[in-house]
Amino acid sequence: MHLLEKFQLQRLRFIRTIWFGLLSLGIMAQNEINQAEKPNFIIIFADDLGYGDLGSYGHPTIHTPNLDRMAMEGQKWTNFYVGASVCTPSRAALLTGRLPVRSGMASNKSRVLFPNSANGLPHEEITLAEQLKTVGYSTACVGKWHLGHKEEYLPPNHGFDYYYGIPYSNDMDLTRKLEGPTGYWDLWTKEYANLEISDFNVPLIRNTTIIERPADQRTITKRYTDESIQWITENREKPFFLYLAYNLPHVPLFASEEFMGTSKRGLYGDVVEEIDHNVGRIMRLLKNEGLADNTIVVFTSDNGPWIKTEISGGSAGLLRDGKGTTWEGGMREPCIFWSPGKITPKVVMELGTTMDLFSTFSKQAGAPMPTDREMDGVDLAPVLFDNEESPRSAVYYYRGRDLYAVRVGPYKAHFITQEVYVPNPKRVEHNPPLLYNLDVDPSERFDLSDEFPEIIAAIQEVVRKHNSKMRKAPDLLALKEKKK
Amino acid sequence: MHLLEKFQLQRLRFIRTIWFGLLSLGIMAQNEINQAEKPNFIIIFADDLGYGDLGSYGHPTIHTPNLDRMAMEGQKWTNFYVGASVCTPSRAALLTGRLPVRSGMASNKSRVLFPNSANGLPHEEITLAEQLKTVGYSTACVGKWHLGHKEEYLPPNHGFDYYYGIPYSNDMDLTRKLEGPTGYWDLWTKEYANLEISDFNVPLIRNTTIIERPADQRTITKRYTDESIQWITENREKPFFLYLAYNLPHVPLFASEEFMGTSKRGLYGDVVEEIDHNVGRIMRLLKNEGLADNTIVVFTSDNGPWIKTEISGGSAGLLRDGKGTTWEGGMREPCIFWSPGKITPKVVMELGTTMDLFSTFSKQAGAPMPTDREMDGVDLAPVLFDNEESPRSAVYYYRGRDLYAVRVGPYKAHFITQEVYVPNPKRVEHNPPLLYNLDVDPSERFDLSDEFPEIIAAIQEVVRKHNSKMRKAPDLLALKEKKK
Repeated sequence: MHLLEKFQLQRLRFIRTIWFGLLSLGIMAQNEINQAEKPNFIIIFADDLGYGDLGSYGHPTIHTPNLDRMAMEGQKWTNFYVGASVCTPSRAALLTGRLPVRSGMASNKSRVLFPNSANGLPHEEITLAEQLKTVGYSTACVGKWHLGHKEEYLPPNHGFDYYYGIPYSNDMDLTRKLEGPTGYWDLWTKEYANLEISDFNVPLIRNTTIIERPADQRTITKRYTDESIQWITENREKPFFLYLAYNLPHVPLFASEEFMGTSKRGLYGDVVEEIDHNVGRIMRLLKNEGLADNTIVVFTSDNGPWIKTEISGGSAGLLRDGKGTTWEGGMREPCIFWSPGKITPKVVMELGTTMDLFSTFSKQAGAPMPTDREMDGVDLAPVLFDNEESPRSAVYYYRGRDLYAVRVGPYKAHFITQEVYVPNPKRVEHNPPLLYNLDVDPSERFDLSDEFPEIIAAIQEVVRKHNSKMRKAPDLLALKEKKK
Repeated sequence: MHLLEKFQLQRLRFIRTIWFGLLSLGIMAQNEINQAEKPNFIIIFADDLGYGDLGSYGHPTIHTPNLDRMAMEGQKWTNFYVGASVCTPSRAALLTGRLPVRSGMASNKSRVLFPNSANGLPHEEITLAEQLKTVGYSTACVGKWHLGHKEEYLPPNHGFDYYYGIPYSNDMDLTRKLEGPTGYWDLWTKEYANLEISDFNVPLIRNTTIIERPADQRTITKRYTDESIQWITENREKPFFLYLAYNLPHVPLFASEEFMGTSKRGLYGDVVEEIDHNVGRIMRLLKNEGLADNTIVVFTSDNGPWIKTEISGGSAGLLRDGKGTTWEGGMREPCIFWSPGKITPKVVMELGTTMDLFSTFSKQAGAPMPTDREMDGVDLAPVLFDNEESPRSAVYYYRGRDLYAVRVGPYKAHFITQEVYVPNPKRVEHNPPLLYNLDVDPSERFDLSDEFPEIIAAIQEVVRKHNSKMRKAPDLLALKEKKK
């Protein structure tokens, strides 16, 4: 088995060498890559899962044997980032390969899209699904969308052949009456055990048709997986791209009967363990159907844990703070790449982001990158397949439309920090910026700004270059539909 | 390989079943167990390593492939405790199987033993080495002792056939002149890169003779391992017990040339990665020499990270606080049990402590437990070998001679909390005690004392029973030798 994998790896490397050789000679157009060799892609995206919420990332009481096995058989990335610290912009970044401020999916007035939002991801944007369709992929989105709930913005109108899921967050369309200023937070910190499915009138949609409302969230993780398994089985003849975006462990937390009460970590743990179990079903399907060797699976989450929801929220482990902030806990996520025979198992401490998936998968699929717009991703192939360094040297931490922090190599400069989920969140501009060495000090405890002005200067130069190429699109999140 | 392991496991279970059957009939005395079947024991004890400092326990930039493999091939325990949150009492607990306050190795006046301390572990105590010698084991202590530096207290006078190591902490016998009230802390937070071996006049001892002074700490991890490997090789014919207590990553941090500058985490990471490498050497030796199947290896540490030493100290991951405290970060440690073919690989969330090793190993070796004294350990065999629940239901968190907190099942009550390593550390008595559910809330964020008075009452009952059997020995740590 081991030898076989090694052989397959060598064969793959050989093929790739030849392929790039031909490419550089201009003999073969990039999109003429043999269909049979194109890998399948599966992105599994959890919601509000913290850096520290998996066993293999250090959680003591959440049992995640399937994801731990995936990490062991694949690459466990420890410096992997999302494009924003909240849902909508993070998802826009993943699917477009661009910072959300370029697509209008970032705002200082509305953190995310709501059921009464007027807009969605604009059609000028190229989604990863649209990109892969140009080279013959079948595409499906299963799970939470959150890039526009109106029909024109739903996945079938953004490059996905098939859609089954909810259009925005599972805590929206609230039918409960909330009292007092802390009413919303009380839902998670005091009342979470008493919530009903009917408290959230979230629709479940197939393609563009509502098929269930309220969506039964107790069985939704299982049903997303059932749909995914059926779709893979039906679409295995062509190369495929599945975007499986579980809408949990975002509050409200619901587990199926099978998982209710099984985790030592309480309901939050039940929910994560149910996701783990269902990821295991996907892995077993791929192995049993002989698809594992030619499929690249990525597991990560959209942003850090929602700390404000107390025990209903996750943990960022040793990282500072969580969802909604530009501290590490808000934007660094567990990330596992898995593809037996293709990806060399190891722990990867190189830099990567969800935006790099667009570039990486495009290259693997032979789809030329868009040239009419600024892209924010890099091709991670050197790390995934060749044990080399990441081409990525910087990470940009936007909050809304503003650049709050930048990481260059191990150093992160915070130009602005701001509280979140409190009334009148305190916003502080730092001059000089706070400076942390994240490799040595992952918890951002020791400000080095006094000691390394030259590093700050170097980061400021990176920021200048970044800003010079930055064209921000108008804010599309803030506008709400008029009440009828 | 897998099948073979399974077979060996079944065979072992069968033998054990028969053995316990015979035992219960009184046909066979417990110490007549066949010498050839007795497993070897290796305890690898790190110093000041935090819960979050290994890759498999969530650290993003410390690379520990050998310990991660050990965790994967063995049992990774996530609720494993030491007997005290500082060196001397923790080591006394490990080696005697008793809370250190019973042996006099706990004090409210002197946290640990110092080079001018008058006493050591009293000879009335039975060490695990002495216990195993009664049933024919060869025994060695390699590394840091810290249970009395005078000859009468050194390992050869406490049941070890062989000793090679330093008698107390590697930061003692300081030859530097320290200025100002924060002088000692400045060593680790400001000057650590400039420390010399000669700044610490710590002796290296073979058996009872000083062979090097100051000990060359740059090569000490490697040399401890070399000595261990040689000793194992020479003593493999009899069952053996090796206690390998690395004196790092306790400050001062020193790495060998080979490891200096290799870790992204800086010098602390270099040091941990050098320990990891050397643990790998031991594992390979056991595998290559055919000893792995009949040897039980345990890796853990004496207490949590010394947070006060900033980047020279480790991380407790998501656990609260560190060394010197009775918060989880002070006393919960990474713990890996490894014995291919004997121990079923899994993540274990059951309760265990270092004091349980005495009971567990005694049973495996066929050595009857002492009956003339109160022991604080339980036999962990049901968890290690039979996939059952831990017989341990409670953990006692002493600081010095006082009981500060008690965990019963998932609930921990703090009766006293106290700051540490600050001038006049604030001590707070809590009535009712603070109450946390550690399974749901491992970071001890949400006090439940108002909600669950009945759980507090149940814990108080456990405390009453515990206190009724508690006989505290006189404080043996405080007394210093008279200056000549």
